[in-house]
Amino acid sequence: MADLGYIGLGTMGGRMAVRLLANGHRVTGYNRTRARAQPLVDHGLQLAGSPRAVVEAADVTFVMVSDSAALNAVADGRDGHDGFIAGVAPGKTVIDMSTVSPALSRALAARVRERGGEMLDAPVSGSVLTLEQGKLSIMVGGDRAAFDRVRPLLEDIGPTVTYVGGNGLAVAMKIATNISVAVQMLAFAEGVALAEKSGIARDTAVGVMTRSAIGSPMLQYRGPFVLQMPDNAWFSTDMMQKDLLLALEMGRQLQVPLPTTAAANEWLTAARAMGLGERDFAAVFQALERAAGVQS
Amino acid sequence: MADLGYIGLGTMGGRMAVRLLANGHRVTGYNRTRARAQPLVDHGLQLAGSPRAVVEAADVTFVMVSDSAALNAVADGRDGHDGFIAGVAPGKTVIDMSTVSPALSRALAARVRERGGEMLDAPVSGSVLTLEQGKLSIMVGGDRAAFDRVRPLLEDIGPTVTYVGGNGLAVAMKIATNISVAVQMLAFAEGVALAEKSGIARDTAVGVMTRSAIGSPMLQYRGPFVLQMPDNAWFSTDMMQKDLLLALEMGRQLQVPLPTTAAANEWLTAARAMGLGERDFAAVFQALERAAGVQS
Amino acid sequence: MADLGYIGLGTMGGRMAVRLLANGHRVTGYNRTRARAQPLVDHGLQLAGSPRAVVEAADVTFVMVSDSAALNAVADGRDGHDGFIAGVAPGKTVIDMSTVSPALSRALAARVRERGGEMLDAPVSGSVLTLEQGKLSIMVGGDRAAFDRVRPLLEDIGPTVTYVGGNGLAVAMKIATNISVAVQMLAFAEGVALAEKSGIARDTAVGVMTRSAIGSPMLQYRGPFVLQMPDNAWFSTDMMQKDLLLALEMGRQLQVPLPTTAAANEWLTAARAMGLGERDFAAVFQALERAAGVQS
Amino acid sequence: MADLGYIGLGTMGGRMAVRLLANGHRVTGYNRTRARAQPLVDHGLQLAGSPRAVVEAADVTFVMVSDSAALNAVADGRDGHDGFIAGVAPGKTVIDMSTVSPALSRALAARVRERGGEMLDAPVSGSVLTLEQGKLSIMVGGDRAAFDRVRPLLEDIGPTVTYVGGNGLAVAMKIATNISVAVQMLAFAEGVALAEKSGIARDTAVGVMTRSAIGSPMLQYRGPFVLQMPDNAWFSTDMMQKDLLLALEMGRQLQVPLPTTAAANEWLTAARAMGLGERDFAAVFQALERAAGVQS
Repeated sequence: MADLGYIGLGTMGGRMAVRLLANGHRVTGYNRTRARAQPLVDHGLQLAGSPRAVVEAADVTFVMVSDSAALNAVADGRDGHDGFIAGVAPGKTVIDMSTVSPALSRALAARVRERGGEMLDAPVSGSVLTLEQGKLSIMVGGDRAAFDRVRPLLEDIGPTVTYVGGNGLAVAMKIATNISVAVQMLAFAEGVALAEKSGIARDTAVGVMTRSAIGSPMLQYRGPFVLQMPDNAWFSTDMMQKDLLLALEMGRQLQVPLPTTAAANEWLTAARAMGLGERDFAAVFQALERAAGVQS
Repeated sequence: MADLGYIGLGTMGGRMAVRLLANGHRVTGYNRTRARAQPLVDHGLQLAGSPRAVVEAADVTFVMVSDSAALNAVADGRDGHDGFIAGVAPGKTVIDMSTVSPALSRALAARVRERGGEMLDAPVSGSVLTLEQGKLSIMVGGDRAAFDRVRPLLEDIGPTVTYVGGNGLAVAMKIATNISVAVQMLAFAEGVALAEKSGIARDTAVGVMTRSAIGSPMLQYRGPFVLQMPDNAWFSTDMMQKDLLLALEMGRQLQVPLPTTAAANEWLTAARAMGLGERDFAAVFQALERAAGVQS
Repeated sequence: MADLGYIGLGTMGGRMAVRLLANGHRVTGYNRTRARAQPLVDHGLQLAGSPRAVVEAADVTFVMVSDSAALNAVADGRDGHDGFIAGVAPGKTVIDMSTVSPALSRALAARVRERGGEMLDAPVSGSVLTLEQGKLSIMVGGDRAAFDRVRPLLEDIGPTVTYVGGNGLAVAMKIATNISVAVQMLAFAEGVALAEKSGIARDTAVGVMTRSAIGSPMLQYRGPFVLQMPDNAWFSTDMMQKDLLLALEMGRQLQVPLPTTAAANEWLTAARAMGLGERDFAAVFQALERAAGVQS
Repeated sequence: MADLGYIGLGTMGGRMAVRLLANGHRVTGYNRTRARAQPLVDHGLQLAGSPRAVVEAADVTFVMVSDSAALNAVADGRDGHDGFIAGVAPGKTVIDMSTVSPALSRALAARVRERGGEMLDAPVSGSVLTLEQGKLSIMVGGDRAAFDRVRPLLEDIGPTVTYVGGNGLAVAMKIATNISVAVQMLAFAEGVALAEKSGIARDTAVGVMTRSAIGSPMLQYRGPFVLQMPDNAWFSTDMMQKDLLLALEMGRQLQVPLPTTAAANEWLTAARAMGLGERDFAAVFQALERAAGVQS
């Protein structure tokens, strides 16, 4: 049993906190919108008034927020006084599970280290469903010894835990992987649209393709969305484009041409322009069908 | 036991003929280059002098050649007299497993039907490895009753057999699926290159990505090719581009924009320009690395 | 004054024939749809019954048809007997102004040469307007001596005449140039859409851009089409895509990656899918605006 | 004669300051690297110690720096005290000629207005050559009355001055136009590479294309760079990509798909990866040729 903290109790973060509580840990939590975190109190969560207070109460603190701006906000807090950085002291560990740029991740890790703590970047690959099925995969970047200390905690959350290398490399790995999430979906959509206009029933096309050699786990659960879009996005077009932007920005800095990433990104823009930004990014299929003159 | 024929005894066709012989069928075969088919005689294959002679000797004849030109050549033969069309008579069935355009497939099916026979298009999804593991997937287009008659034979070859619809629709389905084969590989290559230039070891990147939600069966066996290219192509860059051309041509005729297909196709061109046309199309990774200034 | 022939008396061909008649030449003509050529008889044109008859009556015969199929049709005629090839004899020259593949052009030139004649490929750059303004530019490929003999005739049609090299090289040059026609239009459309969504009036954006360093002659006359589409296409989306296909096919054969050509081609497909195939290809702007969620 | 200021005395800025001095104005200047501005003192320029001091000494101050970071640096100065904002008082006008995002331009204009001044964004279209030939084109955004007051000064710099609309719209217009600068160059490069591999001499291809309907002024001066790259970049690959990033970022925010921009951007990345970042961006031709397997 350990004294843990969790900053950012949204859809994913909240479920992880519950999982940690269920494994017998004490968890102190913080969420910008306090009301959203209230239900977790029934599971035994202790709510704190600031990210700083969470880190002060915990040995190991998890962070999971939606983007760079949100991460900077919880890192520095209001006026720079009550963010999580201010709570760091020797022996404390921060595990950031947000998907942000490797550069930001490295910069925060350096600030944590200056105060005697350690930060790891530990983005997850997978969705709420994957988490609930206990199949989450976690990549970890940072100090190897720090990783070895917190490894059992990470294994409590998702069974697969892979150490990738130094600070920032796990988010780099996540971003490099997410390229394929978006591009595979668009290439799949191109195939379905082509099959459909050839005269093949859409559900036949989806079935054949997801069962074939191209049927990645991602396509197996998201491919059928082109038959029936879920009411709630699992991962929205807006969020997917945020990840592609991180990839494209890394591509430019590291000088790696990313031709299919760039092409897919423009179609995510088209989907957003058609009002599909908050739908699951499988909506890129609808954008393509409209460009193909199909009403749907 | 049935009287079967096999026209086109190359890498895939030859193995299928052996499989049919092993299942106790009589098989008459034809190959343009007769010498390449000689080893099959040891397995019990009867060699015929023309595609026409094969169809005349068999109730059901399989065809598997590399492209439209080769298919036309075996359909019409020398001077139009000894091709397989000329051998068709009432009751005969031709099963074409080649990947050609739906339009050509439909045109040949119509000519077979005029002579009282039936033709099915039955392209396969999978490689030599998949075939040898007994995991091949076959899609079938054409007359439903004809399909029901030959279904057991198709199940002897690959266990998964899916009826897609009328003539030409199975090749359409195959082409629509193959888009993702090429595009997934390039998107994967972009991710590996990005991870590598970030400082992650290439084999770590390949391992993490193929085990993640984007790890389709195709990427699980072909992804590691970026670590070590096979001496012999499983499916060459030249052949992959041939399939993309069929897709792009269908996209234009059916008016479906294919943005990632078009982008991937130009990188296959780059790979061929760099002398990688006969390598496995995973070589698109090498083309990308060279464009990224990496010597490999 | 010379005995000339003109095969293919459509929008461009008809006007050129009139121009040649006005310069005092005798012109024998042929058009597949005879009625469309009738008005030219009033200008002094002699109508012949077949492409062969035209070549037999003329020393130098111009050909201008819409694509490869049409060129093969007038080359071989019905049953191969009354096409223009059959009319070729020593001393005859054929000047093909159609935009077809360099390979087809070279093949026909070889057949003409076998019969003792010479063929030149002489595609034009420019539109009906350019022709009427006397500003047409003609590129010429083929035997240098043959070019020198007919040069004055070509100068009667368009003032700028450039010898490019051997057979097929002028159509190659035309196709290579036309890439930029399509791509420049789409890049311009992207800029106008971006400016407009920024809050700049569309006509201001068009004015600034066409007067700037990117204002090619093509954009100066076609750019304003995004403000008001002409009722009749100067060059339709369907025709523009036909030219891009020739370019993409050459790119694959010669192994030259064509990234912007491929991207533009898919947007021409989208425009066609939206029902804009017969509109001027400036309609690619409308396709882009619809994908950007703008009603227009 | 007016009291003018000039912040940012680089290649373009320095030449403009000389032009203003030559027209009889008093000019106070500031450059981060003071030594680079020293030669201008011989032309009569008064050097000031900070951007703030420039604005305090002048009625109208021009600013021309290379990017957003540099603009923020001269706006706020060291510790926020000696930047140009701090020098603004009622009646002062700032004319920013830098190419930055419309959002940054609007934000700075608001801060200038709060202090009683006016800011205009006035990016230029054209190069050092265009400036020296007296053919520069200037777009202006901001308050109309302020524009009318400074118009004569702008006309002293470049003859063509166009009022585009409110603050930020001139930089938006510049960015929207620059898309075509990059894309036209790459499409031209594709055409030259295709012509060359067809067997046409490179200089013939360049000549034919730049004289044809696609020959924009930009291609007329930069197209020949593919025959002989200039020793000094007129506009480097690095700088060109900076402009494309602004365009792509605007495209995402305003939801305008930019397919050819995105494709061209990845080839600028390839050119940089090949070590051509500081060469003129016409180097994208060399990147394409290398991908096409051509040694150059």
